[in-house]
Amino acid sequence: MEGLYLVTDRELCGGRSIEWVVSRAVSGGVRYVQLREKDTSTRAFIDLAKRVKEILLPLDIPLIINDRVDVALAAGADGVHVGQDDMPYETARRILGPSFLIGLSVETWEDVVSAQDLDVDYLGVSPVFETPTKTDTKGMWGLEGLARIRAYSRHPLVGIGGLNAANAEAVVLAGADCLAVVSAICADADPFRAARDLDEIIRGALRKRPVRPAGAR
Amino acid sequence: MEGLYLVTDRELCGGRSIEWVVSRAVSGGVRYVQLREKDTSTRAFIDLAKRVKEILLPLDIPLIINDRVDVALAAGADGVHVGQDDMPYETARRILGPSFLIGLSVETWEDVVSAQDLDVDYLGVSPVFETPTKTDTKGMWGLEGLARIRAYSRHPLVGIGGLNAANAEAVVLAGADCLAVVSAICADADPFRAARDLDEIIRGALRKRPVRPAGAR
Repeated sequence: MEGLYLVTDRELCGGRSIEWVVSRAVSGGVRYVQLREKDTSTRAFIDLAKRVKEILLPLDIPLIINDRVDVALAAGADGVHVGQDDMPYETARRILGPSFLIGLSVETWEDVVSAQDLDVDYLGVSPVFETPTKTDTKGMWGLEGLARIRAYSRHPLVGIGGLNAANAEAVVLAGADCLAVVSAICADADPFRAARDLDEIIRGALRKRPVRPAGAR
Repeated sequence: MEGLYLVTDRELCGGRSIEWVVSRAVSGGVRYVQLREKDTSTRAFIDLAKRVKEILLPLDIPLIINDRVDVALAAGADGVHVGQDDMPYETARRILGPSFLIGLSVETWEDVVSAQDLDVDYLGVSPVFETPTKTDTKGMWGLEGLARIRAYSRHPLVGIGGLNAANAEAVVLAGADCLAVVSAICADADPFRAARDLDEIIRGALRKRPVRPAGAR
């Protein structure tokens, strides 16, 4: 896993549809899309996920659902992202099977250590920086925390929280394989251009990273 | 399916735990338990459902989860109840398999007609009477509406909405096989006694009903 990862936020999209923002963002270089809906009915979430899946399918971009394993199954999504207050990872893996993409948020060092023996597809390092779009976190990791996780963990790392064009290079160089952004794309007047600019920075930074020794993750 | 059906409501339980209210209610004669949680995390909902399942398992009482197919799968529940804003019935059946108990709310005559060809385990006739515990409904069925559904539908009927000891007999005689109650048990100072009294009325009323011709449902 490498590249730009979009997490949607309905409010930040303003009057624009999530489908439109996703379409523009994937044209600009987003490689993974996660739908996060906290206040919508199950039916509406499934319907949205199906519509977004139709956009992503021809582009071979995985659709990941935040928290809701039921919605992921119903909509034919490719993955789920679970946090520490969501379904336990092992339970989600048992229900979804070995080929489903499952990401897990790590908010404490204990979470990082517990995840080491799990066959998660990535760790969501949350939050890298303080962010107004998620308020239930336990303090930020910072670049130092991210580097410490990178040195320890065998899993791909998806950084999330306060990421934007100004800090994207530093976050990749500190060890993130993917950068998950919310407001940097959803709240931008031009999600295509925002994604394209971020993608360019991330690709450039990935090329600057030393090649990791085989087996390091 | 026949008898008393409890739907939990955390607020109506006051300071008392849902586990305690369920334990008392099943001792009093509740035959089906549905957990309905709208504002809790997925993790907390699963944990609650597992604890309630432990109470119900030795009594052979089915645990039904409102809306959340993911929680039902994770907690080893026996069924789900889906409303018209939840996962579509056919999708839930596909995910959960043929032996899972699935109930479906009907709020309009169109819902009743659409349900006729589905292999649902019961219809939730919602609401029979006006009720403050559910405000997103489309008007009440009343006893006349319930009787009309009974005459038409091939499925067991679970009445819900404003049901209590004062109207329980009439609701059974109008055609409900089960009475689902929320406040009549959750808000009662003595859920055991409330359940016992309701169960007695329901059993008495079921004995008074004419035997339905074979194949009528």
